[in-house]
Amino acid sequence: MVAQPRVLNYDSLPDHVKHCEYAVRGELYRAATERVAAGKEVIFTNVGNPHGLGQKPITFIRQVFALVSAPFLLEHPDVHRIFPRDVIARAKAYMKAAPGGIGAYSDSKGLPIVRQEFADFLQRRDGFGSDIDNIFLTNGASEAVRLGLTAMLRGPQDGILVPIPQYPLYSAAIELLSGSMVGYYLHEESGWSLDFEELERAVRDAKRQGVRVRGMVFINPGNPTGQCLSRQDLEGLVKFAYKHKLVLMADEVYQDNIYQTVRPFVSARHVALSMGAPYAQGLELATFHTASKGVYGECGFRGGVMELLNFDERVADELYKLASINLSPNVPGQVILGLMVNGPRPGDESYAQYAREKQDLLDSLRRRARAITDAFNSCEGIVCQETEGAMYSFPKITLPPAAMAAAKAAGKSPDVFYCLKLLETTGISTVPGSGFKQRDGTFHFRTTILPPESKFQDIIQRFLAFHSAFMAEYKGSTGHGTGARARL
Amino acid sequence: MVAQPRVLNYDSLPDHVKHCEYAVRGELYRAATERVAAGKEVIFTNVGNPHGLGQKPITFIRQVFALVSAPFLLEHPDVHRIFPRDVIARAKAYMKAAPGGIGAYSDSKGLPIVRQEFADFLQRRDGFGSDIDNIFLTNGASEAVRLGLTAMLRGPQDGILVPIPQYPLYSAAIELLSGSMVGYYLHEESGWSLDFEELERAVRDAKRQGVRVRGMVFINPGNPTGQCLSRQDLEGLVKFAYKHKLVLMADEVYQDNIYQTVRPFVSARHVALSMGAPYAQGLELATFHTASKGVYGECGFRGGVMELLNFDERVADELYKLASINLSPNVPGQVILGLMVNGPRPGDESYAQYAREKQDLLDSLRRRARAITDAFNSCEGIVCQETEGAMYSFPKITLPPAAMAAAKAAGKSPDVFYCLKLLETTGISTVPGSGFKQRDGTFHFRTTILPPESKFQDIIQRFLAFHSAFMAEYKGSTGHGTGARARL
Repeated sequence: MVAQPRVLNYDSLPDHVKHCEYAVRGELYRAATERVAAGKEVIFTNVGNPHGLGQKPITFIRQVFALVSAPFLLEHPDVHRIFPRDVIARAKAYMKAAPGGIGAYSDSKGLPIVRQEFADFLQRRDGFGSDIDNIFLTNGASEAVRLGLTAMLRGPQDGILVPIPQYPLYSAAIELLSGSMVGYYLHEESGWSLDFEELERAVRDAKRQGVRVRGMVFINPGNPTGQCLSRQDLEGLVKFAYKHKLVLMADEVYQDNIYQTVRPFVSARHVALSMGAPYAQGLELATFHTASKGVYGECGFRGGVMELLNFDERVADELYKLASINLSPNVPGQVILGLMVNGPRPGDESYAQYAREKQDLLDSLRRRARAITDAFNSCEGIVCQETEGAMYSFPKITLPPAAMAAAKAAGKSPDVFYCLKLLETTGISTVPGSGFKQRDGTFHFRTTILPPESKFQDIIQRFLAFHSAFMAEYKGSTGHGTGARARL
Repeated sequence: MVAQPRVLNYDSLPDHVKHCEYAVRGELYRAATERVAAGKEVIFTNVGNPHGLGQKPITFIRQVFALVSAPFLLEHPDVHRIFPRDVIARAKAYMKAAPGGIGAYSDSKGLPIVRQEFADFLQRRDGFGSDIDNIFLTNGASEAVRLGLTAMLRGPQDGILVPIPQYPLYSAAIELLSGSMVGYYLHEESGWSLDFEELERAVRDAKRQGVRVRGMVFINPGNPTGQCLSRQDLEGLVKFAYKHKLVLMADEVYQDNIYQTVRPFVSARHVALSMGAPYAQGLELATFHTASKGVYGECGFRGGVMELLNFDERVADELYKLASINLSPNVPGQVILGLMVNGPRPGDESYAQYAREKQDLLDSLRRRARAITDAFNSCEGIVCQETEGAMYSFPKITLPPAAMAAAKAAGKSPDVFYCLKLLETTGISTVPGSGFKQRDGTFHFRTTILPPESKFQDIIQRFLAFHSAFMAEYKGSTGHGTGARARL
């Protein structure tokens, strides 16, 4: 007897499943994975995954976490030989507040003690506190974003404003929820800046196509673009969202990754609450944060959080209900998030080491951000805006006509073609700009700034040699040293 | 200036969001949470959350995990004073296989080392191995179930067979995905057994209503019903699913929680693969497992897994793409799952303690399952099928007419009314049967068997006193000692 054809085949999948794309783990990632399987070297600069590239965790965070993981160690006679006093105290505080420890489901919004730590953090950061009822801990900020979008999208008539370029979670999640992504272009030449006329254009065009925009995403610092918004930009955003009756979604997961001093990070929440009526009481704002970025880089823990400002209580209740279907976010990630926003204070035994580890990492990231941007801008055919923040560099590449033709012949988008060649030649795994969306006719790629400094110059040299050879192959030029420099 | 009305209000939420229900964290849970906030005692028997009720983690698992959490301890001179040799070796093996440790994103399907551990476990359990490409690690089995359903449901024309009573994840997820739940009733009086005529009826009725059934869920051991399926039942299920072209979803998360010896756990995967052609090669089977149940109870880690048998490769690729939108499942949960399926072996330093801890827990669960069923069956108006497996007891209550009238007057379903009274009087938090669906006109509630044995008799006595008083109030009887006993 021959088995019947598969019940579930590609053609019978839902359209929204087939159509959604997620380039960070797309064709380039698969090609990189195949290289690894073939025993070849790959430098994974495709995902902001610091520990995956050798970054060490912050000692204090993992010390507390180890004790929470194995609470029987708290009673061990040798515990003081290994763990500082403030670490032991923090672990005991978590275990007291959550008697089942990290092996028990928490409330579907997360452990109250961690939500309170996050509320206190918001008070210190913004000058305005929060209530733990407004705080949802999640499996990574991605899950929080999807939770918020689930409440906003009834079908293709509902739109969400998303920057272009964007982090592809947004396009993928909106597609999966059968909503409409309404793109607004950032202005590359002026450092990927916000353009309010462009925002108005996007809303207008959507309306013309029967799409009512209900929400707006912005990413500050930008991913993949690295720009930092000014307070003035944020005030404009708050007014724009309020005027157009949009729920504002503030993706601020890179708030600790700031590499310039002109525009320090300011949260949309602080700005909105400082603006007074009607914005402070009227703007519906969802704020996202994570333990995966900053100098912590605890991606594997999937510790995300969402705070809701001015949300209708019944809507928040429905979000709570949705969260409850998964019972609880993972509890280890909650603890890591709590430790991130509530580190040791001056005077604590662990403070000096903690502060030094954080500062060293931030300084190193700043040096790497600068080095990589400079390297790109030294290349013919590449213009790269400054990485003011976040963990990425997003250069624009102008390929010679012969390279464009070769890409076409290979059936690839030019940026995919370029990135595949880069991977094959150097082992450097990047993400083509098309995965983030980009202005038609322009091509980019995204790389993280995360390879360790010990290997950084080598990676840059490999890249420069590749690019030179690539340009020489398709143009007959040496391709190095003549590139225009972007505004810095 | 007065703020405008909220952009996002209850009326403007998507219908599927408003309509979905999740009773395990529903009205009773909220009432319980309010009691806690008011400083009153609550015994949370509403969720299968062993550590939340005081169960201790298995030492070996947490020892390895603590070292993986703080890998710098591996180099500490005192590490051998605290950790056994096999624990240290296992931690080193994980760190070697995943150099970024638990702070790095894994592949979107999870760490290859853990997927291999699970594949090896399947080989030992079923006599048939798997390929790690078919294995997806997830944030709890709930996420895996939702992932599978996402691929199957295009709209209300697509149906999924779900047992009644069911675990409400299924009804909620199907509603959220705009599919149709097609219920099939389990036969309570014969121990919640499967009834193949009833299954045929369900498919037929669905078809009549324009619903094409594409998948079928079964839960073995049952939740909330506690029954264990025989090999014969499973063979019937495999044939039924194959005949009707259904993807079979095997919710086997309670496979280690077996309290009788007549029907030891047999996996659907073993049965299907043992049946030969066309089933072994033709049945599309998704198998779910978790670290949250068994004797481990590591709910907080949200370590789930799904294995796909005979799935179309392109469908599996699309599931991989969907998983990748969230980048990676939480990595701590992956490690816990790996440790669960790959514990110490005889001869290892940790083996004796590990085996003893597991056996003690299982013995204790078995005693508690029996004690609670017996107590329920000693009550007038209560009939409770044996808890053969899983972590729940699901008694049927027959309320006196006066209680039915009082419930109606209070605007509550009779089972909700009863459970709220139970909570108010005793602090025992249960879930009304309506949350799981039940035959019209019958009423049940679910309680876990998880309160610690030191408190178990006290809780049972409290329940018996409550039920006696409840029956006396509404019936004028003493209500105790006259109940019919169920088949045991």
